Amino acid sequence: MSVNDLMRSRTLKWLNTGGNNGDVVLLSRIRLARNLRQIPFPNRADYNALAQVELQLDKTIPQIVEGLGQPFDRLDMEHISALQRQVLIEKQLISSNLVKNPQHRIAYISDDRRITIMANEEDHIRIQCTLAGFDLDHAWRLASDIDDCIENQVNLAFDEKMGYLTSCPTNLGTGMRASVVLHLPGLVYSRNMDSIVNLSPQLGLAVRSLFGTKENPSCIYRISNQLTLGLSEEELIENLKSTVNEIVAHERAARKALLYYMKDDVEDRIWRAYGTLRYARSLSEGELFGLLAKVRLGLDLKIIDEVSPECYGELLVGGRTSYLRNFAENENLSANEVDRLRAAHVRETLTRHRIGREE
Amino acid sequence: MSVNDLMRSRTLKWLNTGGNNGDVVLLSRIRLARNLRQIPFPNRADYNALAQVELQLDKTIPQIVEGLGQPFDRLDMEHISALQRQVLIEKQLISSNLVKNPQHRIAYISDDRRITIMANEEDHIRIQCTLAGFDLDHAWRLASDIDDCIENQVNLAFDEKMGYLTSCPTNLGTGMRASVVLHLPGLVYSRNMDSIVNLSPQLGLAVRSLFGTKENPSCIYRISNQLTLGLSEEELIENLKSTVNEIVAHERAARKALLYYMKDDVEDRIWRAYGTLRYARSLSEGELFGLLAKVRLGLDLKIIDEVSPECYGELLVGGRTSYLRNFAENENLSANEVDRLRAAHVRETLTRHRIGREE
Repeated sequence: MSVNDLMRSRTLKWLNTGGNNGDVVLLSRIRLARNLRQIPFPNRADYNALAQVELQLDKTIPQIVEGLGQPFDRLDMEHISALQRQVLIEKQLISSNLVKNPQHRIAYISDDRRITIMANEEDHIRIQCTLAGFDLDHAWRLASDIDDCIENQVNLAFDEKMGYLTSCPTNLGTGMRASVVLHLPGLVYSRNMDSIVNLSPQLGLAVRSLFGTKENPSCIYRISNQLTLGLSEEELIENLKSTVNEIVAHERAARKALLYYMKDDVEDRIWRAYGTLRYARSLSEGELFGLLAKVRLGLDLKIIDEVSPECYGELLVGGRTSYLRNFAENENLSANEVDRLRAAHVRETLTRHRIGREE
Repeated sequence: MSVNDLMRSRTLKWLNTGGNNGDVVLLSRIRLARNLRQIPFPNRADYNALAQVELQLDKTIPQIVEGLGQPFDRLDMEHISALQRQVLIEKQLISSNLVKNPQHRIAYISDDRRITIMANEEDHIRIQCTLAGFDLDHAWRLASDIDDCIENQVNLAFDEKMGYLTSCPTNLGTGMRASVVLHLPGLVYSRNMDSIVNLSPQLGLAVRSLFGTKENPSCIYRISNQLTLGLSEEELIENLKSTVNEIVAHERAARKALLYYMKDDVEDRIWRAYGTLRYARSLSEGELFGLLAKVRLGLDLKIIDEVSPECYGELLVGGRTSYLRNFAENENLSANEVDRLRAAHVRETLTRHRIGREE
């Protein structure tokens, strides 16, 4: 695939619905931080050292490609535009850390977009594997296989006592961050999210709201392990999984309660959100996230039946500001112009995903 | 037509679009107040006297029917339900004065719904003729013909100096109230309506907002002559016409200015209003009026092209609370139930009036 395809594509396999527990869990991700022996961490490394990392990682890729049976795109951050970098960040294909200083920062992105390997992010090597739905075990196996493949070819900084050495001490040990992204409209609309956010540090987990604004909550949260040390990767993942299972159960109970106690009101709000997306001529990014949260809930509750659920993931990607500026091939598009383009994209997407007869 | 048809019909010929200056003038109305000689005005009359008025007016109807070539429905306010009376008021087929004490209060309504003759309203006889668009002359001729026909058959209270005697001195003289109902979204949205309302008494005119709320302006105003004395009917009508012509010109200029200076915003608001009407599951009457004002503007400006303009009049009739309670044959329908029924009616009406391909 060309860089252009990567930028313009509005589908991301791991934003598809239909994954395991896909009504609540949007995606699962494992990220591993690794560093090469005897080379300074990227924040202290000079260009020569960074180039050495780049070179060493380049050499490991063919074997990874062979093992996975799919090609990778190699994107040099220095050779793509600032806008293109932002699109990759929006799509969660790279981290924002990778582009602070683009020199010798490389992203290798697998053809199916599930795997990104980054060179000279906060650590020399970052491996991230993202899968649709609740599928941490599979994501972990995938990341671990790639890690093994790299470890066979280079010398990683590893200490028998400490585990993998990392630039930031919060990643020390396993170097692993496991996370799931959840859609929690039931808990948000019933005002139960605060207690979960407050409780999470005691469980060794971090809960962070993604996208949206206070007025327009996206209801999307990323939950990840805070600890990286003292437990095995499998134990850390099990810990996260058990908490996520509880949150999923709470979310489903909250949705049932909403339907039981305020069905009319919920239906009205969901359909109004859909009507606004279908007809608005201008939409801010924040408003889009707020409306999408309601529409997604409507799709999950089978209240909205005139559009296929796949539209949700496409709108989360194709409705973003950098995506639209890049699509229009005009990074200077004004905020108003972007908002109008966003509304046009949303209308086109919903029309394309229309199903069945209308009422 | 049966009473039931009269109640359930959602079309009123004089709410059709396409009348003279129909982009701004919804309808024109002439109302004449007449009283019978030597019978006390209704507010002072006993049942015998009221019955006498009823009897005398009954006798004049056949000749009116013959002259107009169409039948009249005779509705005795005592013999229809309170809810049915409210529906007639909502449809502007009778005045609210007619139903305060329903005994011996009769409405004769022409088959085409343009003419209502009321017995024992504030005056013994009230004749009202309503036509679509800006058509006061025609409405005046129609009312005048009916008046002549009645005058030939009964003795009207008339004083050479004062003119027609009426229960309330504000109607003395011609007994005529000429009015037009205007849709003025351009002047309302550009905040120019206050100056027109403030200026109107100096012109001998009354401007009154109909329906809607401050938050949800319907943008519908009734403008009528205040004077009834000292000028001929034709002079009073000419006076009203010339002011209305000016307001129409101002309204069109305001619409042009809105499109020139804030086209994107206007289009967005209009389409969002349409989207809400198309998809909401619950609508208050106030919100409906506010949304309809925007949709009607969108229809007039040819911004909304997927629904025929006839929907507007139907929604103004079929979206009303008493209409819906009567339609559901349940006068005890709760406010929430009415709001849900209203939304369902609106969706059905818009789907039925759908034209062309959607985007």
